[in-house]
Amino acid sequence: MLRAVLCVIFLLRALPASAKESRGHISVVLLGATGDLAKKYLWQGLFQLYRDEVSNGHSFTFHGAALTAPEPGQKMMFEVLKNLACPPDEHPTRCAVLKDQFLKLSQYYQLRTAENYTVLNREIETLLEQEGLEEAGRIFYFSVPPFAYAEIAGHINSSCRPRPGAWLRVVLEKPFGHDLESAQQLAAELRNFFKEEEMYRVDHYLGKQAVAHILPFRDQNRQFLDPIWNRHHVERVEIVLKETVDAKGRASFYEQYGVIRDVLQNHLTEVMMYLAMELPANISSTEDVLQHKLQTFKSLQGLEKTSAVIGQYQAYTSQVQEELQKAQNYFSMTPTFAGVLIHVDSLRWEGVPFILTSGKALDERVGYIRVLFKNRAYCTQSEALRDAEHSQCKAKQIIFYIGHGELNSPAVLVSRNLFRPVMPEGSWREVTDRPQMHLFGQPLSDYYVYSPMKERDAYAMLISSIYHARKDFFITTENLLASWEFWTPLLDSISHQAPRLYPGGRENQHLLDFEMLGQELSFTLAEPVELLHTSKQTPDDYQTIQTKFRNSSLVSAWPEELVSQLASDLEAVAARAVARSGEFHLAVSGGSSPVVLFQRLAKHHYGFPWKRTHLWLVDERCVPLTDPESNFCSLHNHLLQHVRLPYFNLHPMPVHLNWRLCVEEDQGPELYAEEIAALVTNASFDLILLGVGADGHTASLFPRSSSGLGGDQAVVLTESPVKPHQRMSLSLPFINKARQVFILVLGRGKHEIITLLSRVGNEPKKWPISGVRPSSGQLVWYMDYEALLG
Amino acid sequence: MLRAVLCVIFLLRALPASAKESRGHISVVLLGATGDLAKKYLWQGLFQLYRDEVSNGHSFTFHGAALTAPEPGQKMMFEVLKNLACPPDEHPTRCAVLKDQFLKLSQYYQLRTAENYTVLNREIETLLEQEGLEEAGRIFYFSVPPFAYAEIAGHINSSCRPRPGAWLRVVLEKPFGHDLESAQQLAAELRNFFKEEEMYRVDHYLGKQAVAHILPFRDQNRQFLDPIWNRHHVERVEIVLKETVDAKGRASFYEQYGVIRDVLQNHLTEVMMYLAMELPANISSTEDVLQHKLQTFKSLQGLEKTSAVIGQYQAYTSQVQEELQKAQNYFSMTPTFAGVLIHVDSLRWEGVPFILTSGKALDERVGYIRVLFKNRAYCTQSEALRDAEHSQCKAKQIIFYIGHGELNSPAVLVSRNLFRPVMPEGSWREVTDRPQMHLFGQPLSDYYVYSPMKERDAYAMLISSIYHARKDFFITTENLLASWEFWTPLLDSISHQAPRLYPGGRENQHLLDFEMLGQELSFTLAEPVELLHTSKQTPDDYQTIQTKFRNSSLVSAWPEELVSQLASDLEAVAARAVARSGEFHLAVSGGSSPVVLFQRLAKHHYGFPWKRTHLWLVDERCVPLTDPESNFCSLHNHLLQHVRLPYFNLHPMPVHLNWRLCVEEDQGPELYAEEIAALVTNASFDLILLGVGADGHTASLFPRSSSGLGGDQAVVLTESPVKPHQRMSLSLPFINKARQVFILVLGRGKHEIITLLSRVGNEPKKWPISGVRPSSGQLVWYMDYEALLG
Repeated sequence: MLRAVLCVIFLLRALPASAKESRGHISVVLLGATGDLAKKYLWQGLFQLYRDEVSNGHSFTFHGAALTAPEPGQKMMFEVLKNLACPPDEHPTRCAVLKDQFLKLSQYYQLRTAENYTVLNREIETLLEQEGLEEAGRIFYFSVPPFAYAEIAGHINSSCRPRPGAWLRVVLEKPFGHDLESAQQLAAELRNFFKEEEMYRVDHYLGKQAVAHILPFRDQNRQFLDPIWNRHHVERVEIVLKETVDAKGRASFYEQYGVIRDVLQNHLTEVMMYLAMELPANISSTEDVLQHKLQTFKSLQGLEKTSAVIGQYQAYTSQVQEELQKAQNYFSMTPTFAGVLIHVDSLRWEGVPFILTSGKALDERVGYIRVLFKNRAYCTQSEALRDAEHSQCKAKQIIFYIGHGELNSPAVLVSRNLFRPVMPEGSWREVTDRPQMHLFGQPLSDYYVYSPMKERDAYAMLISSIYHARKDFFITTENLLASWEFWTPLLDSISHQAPRLYPGGRENQHLLDFEMLGQELSFTLAEPVELLHTSKQTPDDYQTIQTKFRNSSLVSAWPEELVSQLASDLEAVAARAVARSGEFHLAVSGGSSPVVLFQRLAKHHYGFPWKRTHLWLVDERCVPLTDPESNFCSLHNHLLQHVRLPYFNLHPMPVHLNWRLCVEEDQGPELYAEEIAALVTNASFDLILLGVGADGHTASLFPRSSSGLGGDQAVVLTESPVKPHQRMSLSLPFINKARQVFILVLGRGKHEIITLLSRVGNEPKKWPISGVRPSSGQLVWYMDYEALLG
Repeated sequence: MLRAVLCVIFLLRALPASAKESRGHISVVLLGATGDLAKKYLWQGLFQLYRDEVSNGHSFTFHGAALTAPEPGQKMMFEVLKNLACPPDEHPTRCAVLKDQFLKLSQYYQLRTAENYTVLNREIETLLEQEGLEEAGRIFYFSVPPFAYAEIAGHINSSCRPRPGAWLRVVLEKPFGHDLESAQQLAAELRNFFKEEEMYRVDHYLGKQAVAHILPFRDQNRQFLDPIWNRHHVERVEIVLKETVDAKGRASFYEQYGVIRDVLQNHLTEVMMYLAMELPANISSTEDVLQHKLQTFKSLQGLEKTSAVIGQYQAYTSQVQEELQKAQNYFSMTPTFAGVLIHVDSLRWEGVPFILTSGKALDERVGYIRVLFKNRAYCTQSEALRDAEHSQCKAKQIIFYIGHGELNSPAVLVSRNLFRPVMPEGSWREVTDRPQMHLFGQPLSDYYVYSPMKERDAYAMLISSIYHARKDFFITTENLLASWEFWTPLLDSISHQAPRLYPGGRENQHLLDFEMLGQELSFTLAEPVELLHTSKQTPDDYQTIQTKFRNSSLVSAWPEELVSQLASDLEAVAARAVARSGEFHLAVSGGSSPVVLFQRLAKHHYGFPWKRTHLWLVDERCVPLTDPESNFCSLHNHLLQHVRLPYFNLHPMPVHLNWRLCVEEDQGPELYAEEIAALVTNASFDLILLGVGADGHTASLFPRSSSGLGGDQAVVLTESPVKPHQRMSLSLPFINKARQVFILVLGRGKHEIITLLSRVGNEPKKWPISGVRPSSGQLVWYMDYEALLG
């Protein structure tokens, strides 16, 4: 200890004359000082900090700490420190002097018990007193497993806080939990000991030079980017980290996390935020940056199982079996490869795919962010005569090249037909060597290419940011929880999904290529093993059963084929009606079954005569139309938003007259009946689409109630046994006036009522559906196999 | 004549034993038999028809006709016939025999006077009688200028109709008019003489092998195309005809027509219809094909001036001066190059750009149709390791290559990563030579390439179609008029627009490259000469006058800039309202002025927060909402159909309650006021957009009536001096509660009232507009120069 103190004295005296007035002393405590991360990056980063800041007024001491006993610990630590190096541009003499000073300022501590912490604190205090130093602050860098966080945090909080007026910064390394719940728990624990502003959660990706330059680039090139950084111009964004290594030797960690938690939830998501966030007017405002980033998190569209494709390299399971001593029949479901499609629900980004992908055992090691712009140009000159720099027909892209890969250095690339970017002069320079090298489908000569003047390690950059209190390079608690909130549903939904196996390396060929279909991702190639299942149903070869049910036509198939058949039949009915009368009057009922039909119609039936279609409701719940329980609202969300029906052709039921719901004297049923009478020839709908409840109800006509089963009212108010109780419904006699009625029945839950209906006659009072018998129209049952066969 | 008859006898006797029973005689009359088209293609086509059909039961005679006297005409015609040739696969002996027969069956006629036609008819009749032939039909091929059509048609109709039971087919060559009016006139004239089914209007492009194969290709590849032939998968469609020749020697024709009439209105539009039309179930049904094609014409979005870019090669004007004997100061505005952006307003194609382009004096001669698909894939393997055939990351395209260009033959190309197309075996074959040749950004080896087994001239194909009565290869009158109806507004709007000058050939470089910005096209490079016109108004530098009018803000500019400024201001107000309260409540009034604003908003303001916008009416006419007089209907047609507002956010005025219009006891105004009170905070709209009538009315508040000028009713019924008299309107006190009011005033017709308003005070009873003074909100007048300055 004495030696360290002496060194400080030596150092303080050795400060150059030009040094500013002393700004106080900073004690840096590195917990896990002999671990891998410390060895590889952290000591080097601290040494860099020291070299950068030694002349700027602060004095430093560096306190390595671990569980190891003092003597061996000290030895191990100094083995690491011996290897510290300066970058090539540092003068060797200065480097040697500074390294010597740094070693003298560094001291090893065993930190195991509460007392150990008290001793550490006392020694820091003593030094400050003896040297008469103001304390500026203390940095505690947690390079330890997260299970140790709480205990260490407690000790620091109770024994090692700096003097009043000086700051405390604790630096935490991932993983920060495993899902939303565990992250919340960890955050709550830490909150017991530290204030939000004291915590610096590291995502070292944010220290990578190309990543750290995204916001400055967007800021400095606003004039070019403002018009194009949006859904009208950006075709897609790819955020990619490919690795060649596998998880060998780290299986016990990896098996708990997998690629999504290891790379996507943190690194790639953070990068995506930098690209997608609204740019604050002043990007040096830490608070604005963090606030805008958080906003963007909140505008992400939720992920579903189909938003991702996952893979696992073939050797992984045996590595897990070996390293975790699992049996030969143990199979891991942990993904080592993932592609995820993310959409941002904002005016700027609506519809623009953000593709995040990462994997181990791939063909190359590379990290990049690629913003591909839409090609809006037509080039009249033939290809051979075009000039790369001016041709608007070449791809337009901006790439933040994180490192490795063919370029093998960080870089920013901008297509020459986009603009010449403004780059900070002192730190990035244009490079034009290797013009023939191909990247992203084009020769390098098609881009303006910039590389950092000095390559700088991410940790060195982050340690400097901690020193400068630039919290925007770190993950706040809110940010962390927002990220887990976003990722956890996907992680849950795929936790039992078998990943596609891939051989690893170049052998993967096209096995991991994937593509977008609307909001979904799927692998492009069918999984080889699937080719064996010749029974697999495809739209081309499905068989629908056509037969009779209750003396009416029956169409039966697997659900997907059934819905596809129903949609086609519906379109044919519509086309005939339009050909006959110029209009198609369709009445649809609520419930969940029609949703799949609506989706099918919206996505696949481009020829559907929507402009000539009038849409009526078979029944409605007595709730406002904007209520998510409203049948009309569901129709709106699943169908109407995706097709173009004239406003005048929509006929929601008037359940909300005079700002009250289904009050008899408002005469909603009468009004609706009048509207039908006024617009529909003979008040006979071209097609009514019904469902069946497990209790035999249809429309909103329920068993054990006679309302709507007879009489000459077209529309009636009824009472449902389940909430919301009040309903409006077409009556049974009115339904039976339709030219055609289709009844859609899906799922095993309907098998019992279907079996029953196959045996009973016409007893609408017991089972209203049994009363559906169009008097001169046609009735067709569409039933999936599960409903029909159980 | 005798000679011809003898030949027929010879021929009929010479028919092979295998010939079917005689199906009757066909007389083909070629009018303009010694003209260019006849020389180059038509005789050759007729000879081909003869070779193809000679053994199939019909007998033929060929009657060439022109204005030239018999002797020299006969001589000229036989000079042409001497050069007729057979394709290489015809046996030389058979060819010689057939050619000899064909010559003997061909006869020249002078057709100048009515009597000439009578003679022609008599000779045909005589032949039929003498030989005891049944008459099958007569073909009259009009290879003459259209001004001669009417006269010839009259003669044919009165003297040359075939015997009862036999058919008449008259074949017409373009141009079919110059615009909608002239085309209608020509069509009406022809209708005096021929029935629709007798007329065959030729667009020879439809006989090009690659074009004629579009529908069969779509039909035979339905399984592959059905899922992708739509807006979700097609990125763009390019339909291109580039020529290297210029108009030299044809200036007198070309100067009247220009490239749009010469190529786009007919050839390229017809091709586009084949691509865009819904595919009939049975493509061999001529009627269905024609019907579907016509449907597609009707779904085209109207073109505007900004839908096109036009150019003219530099030498054109001097060619016109020379050939048309114009003075040196004559400058032609005729475009020799055009690029046009077309959108189809259908669910299938909404948003997909169809780019039609053609020009003379370009760098290469080539014709193609290129359907480029969206790239939906991410390829995990690095580029170097991808396999062209399986990589989903390569471009996906289908190309119908019409001819010339690098391939120099008709072809169909399909990217290998799309599908292997089904092609008709007897007529198209796969070709794999020249795999290294590059087309459309890829080596030929990336495509399946098919070429016709036999190259066949378009006219030969069309003449065969006339013979087979395949009317779907010809332009019906309806189709022709639909096409002119579509193109005429564009032609009118650009008739005074100076085309961009281009040097011609390779020198054009990037001068004719153009790009899409929303619905607009513009050249990519600024026109060099434009740089001189520093006064040119562009959206960036136009000057709007900002000053005061009646103590409120005034924005004044030329109409286009004014509307563009108003639209931007409106969007800014909307964005602020949404940021403040999550919603934007906008009330708009009727009349014609807002229409231009709505169009501007729909086409240029992608960032407008429509999903959060509630749209209210300031006033409404007491007519049903679907009545074209309805303000809401106009709003629906000009704005709502083009943006996506949720149904729930539309608030038409309830002028049509209980199936009657504005009856007091239905309490429409009270209902609307309640709806406003329920949804709008403080019942204060974020923005009300008003107009001014020449009489000083605003909303539906009229001079000399006090209704709506005071009191606490938010909504009132009023009386207009003009029809429809009954109106519903927001009241003046209510309008004055708005947070902002914009008043839009356009046109010289408003100058008088504006001048008056600038002098008077607040006299709402005389001039209701003068009472618009938001009590705590802001008022801005948007006035164009004509309204302001007269």
